[in-house]
Amino acid sequence: MMELPYLLKRENICRIEDGRILIGDRRVFPFKRRFEVCTSVEEIAGALQSMVTQGGGPLEVALTTMVYVAKQMREGRLPRDPAVLERACDLLIAARPTNTTMKRVIQGLLAELASHPSDWLDLVEPKVEAVQASFDHVYEVMGRFGSSLLGPENTILTTCFAEHTFLLSLAYAQAEGKHVRVIANETRPYLQGSRLTAPSLQEMGIEVQLITDGMGATVISEHMVTHYMTAADVVCLDGTVVNKVGTLSNALAAHAYGVPYYAFSVSPDPTKRGRQDLVMEMRSAGEVTQCLGRSTTKKGIGALYPAFDSIPAELVRGIVTAKGVLSPHQIQRSFS
Amino acid sequence: MMELPYLLKRENICRIEDGRILIGDRRVFPFKRRFEVCTSVEEIAGALQSMVTQGGGPLEVALTTMVYVAKQMREGRLPRDPAVLERACDLLIAARPTNTTMKRVIQGLLAELASHPSDWLDLVEPKVEAVQASFDHVYEVMGRFGSSLLGPENTILTTCFAEHTFLLSLAYAQAEGKHVRVIANETRPYLQGSRLTAPSLQEMGIEVQLITDGMGATVISEHMVTHYMTAADVVCLDGTVVNKVGTLSNALAAHAYGVPYYAFSVSPDPTKRGRQDLVMEMRSAGEVTQCLGRSTTKKGIGALYPAFDSIPAELVRGIVTAKGVLSPHQIQRSFS
Repeated sequence: MMELPYLLKRENICRIEDGRILIGDRRVFPFKRRFEVCTSVEEIAGALQSMVTQGGGPLEVALTTMVYVAKQMREGRLPRDPAVLERACDLLIAARPTNTTMKRVIQGLLAELASHPSDWLDLVEPKVEAVQASFDHVYEVMGRFGSSLLGPENTILTTCFAEHTFLLSLAYAQAEGKHVRVIANETRPYLQGSRLTAPSLQEMGIEVQLITDGMGATVISEHMVTHYMTAADVVCLDGTVVNKVGTLSNALAAHAYGVPYYAFSVSPDPTKRGRQDLVMEMRSAGEVTQCLGRSTTKKGIGALYPAFDSIPAELVRGIVTAKGVLSPHQIQRSFS
Repeated sequence: MMELPYLLKRENICRIEDGRILIGDRRVFPFKRRFEVCTSVEEIAGALQSMVTQGGGPLEVALTTMVYVAKQMREGRLPRDPAVLERACDLLIAARPTNTTMKRVIQGLLAELASHPSDWLDLVEPKVEAVQASFDHVYEVMGRFGSSLLGPENTILTTCFAEHTFLLSLAYAQAEGKHVRVIANETRPYLQGSRLTAPSLQEMGIEVQLITDGMGATVISEHMVTHYMTAADVVCLDGTVVNKVGTLSNALAAHAYGVPYYAFSVSPDPTKRGRQDLVMEMRSAGEVTQCLGRSTTKKGIGALYPAFDSIPAELVRGIVTAKGVLSPHQIQRSFS
């Protein structure tokens, strides 16, 4: 695999050190390289809830937490009881309700462990490592598929922080001699575009320019964009894509001006038929009325923070998966 | 006319005091009530260029500057030469190229003065006052037309700071017993929505909630919005609307989900046939990579700042003018 940028190196997402869990604090990146230090599952869940990490981060945190809990059990600090491990996982899953990949991967792992009642505790680490290795493989495969969508000259609009699969696609394309340029939405309120995507691209030697979240349609309408590409927090069986708020707006503009929209999904969700099965997170309105901790408006003025968009299948040209680039209507057949 | 909020009171936009021009600094509102103090036309042009005021502000500044220059001529500080007044006006017009209303009004005034070669200097003040009075009348008339577009229950999405005509529409509607609620885009990078629109609505007793600029399509798609309404920096004869970047994105979403988009224009521009005649301002990229003066990304990362959107007529349900609410294709007949 290609060299990943700082933010995506596993040890910078989450690691165990001196009996504590360190979670890379994406809220203060790139201004500080800080880690949230946790010593209990409750603290880890709190860190997830307060958005210390995001995207694929919570899954990495949950996997590392399983290893951490298993260690504590072996050291006699926690009872050797699978119910304790399950309760820990439930806490983390509940902390990020929209992140169904984390939920399915972790519940799958717990089910596997449950089928080994005698040696489940010894299996936690190797099974977590196997999951991590399979994700690395999926990232690489999807990066290759993503790269195949690009031509000799590309200006790709993106929203939020699309992590491994998207960044690897660009790196592979660039390594093949394709010219790749990115325009990134800043992605308010957390500025993942400005703080995570743009510095990671810069680190990877890929040209990037920032725009505010209202400018996506503008650059699309001015024919400055060849592709719109994002991650997907969820892909439903009917091809509905769930991603960071702001994605719908760009997908509508891309559709109106004939620019293809591709979403990257490591695991479409077979339990979600479509929009009707989605629970959308409304986050704290207080985030919208501040930027980098500073108030943006007068005291007492309220806000709305719908955290995710649900993008209808007809706006999606293709979904990049480990099984290839699928059209939205192929998802049901391939993942149910 | 209804009581206007602080920001729209003429004396808070621009006034002459103690031989200086004071321009209300919208860049620091609502955190501070500060005035930029200018003593020369060059300083005034600099203030316009650095966005001390915006929207209808630059026209008010230009009108007040004409009075200021005339006073200085009478006091012997400037030569009594119409060319000096013209040069002053040209400087201000050049400071804000997209603001064609200012340009046309000021050039019209200069032409009128030129037709009075003997007493032009004495006519500056009464003519400026007549223009101001006619704008006040237009605001009131357009406010009534705007209010007529609203039903008993309204949730209006708006972008940037649509000033008198929009705010008066809501005030009149509310006074008639209609229920009015506003969802306002924060409008990055300058946050006119958070800083100007929301506090002004709050001051007027109109319910308002902020969203980031990527959330317009979201609230529209969730059927939370009955109308999308904005000002228009320019309206072309073919019904193309020019307004703050971010407007196109919402207009596309409104069109896709059947929500009517109305733009308010005090003066459609008979010199602009359509998109082909528009000069779009690209502003400093450095604005996009900061928020309230604080850097939002890593040093060295670039940005794009297209300042305005051009919204094709087919996305516009109606244009509120002093002659009524017109469909985009009626503009040519009514204003050329």
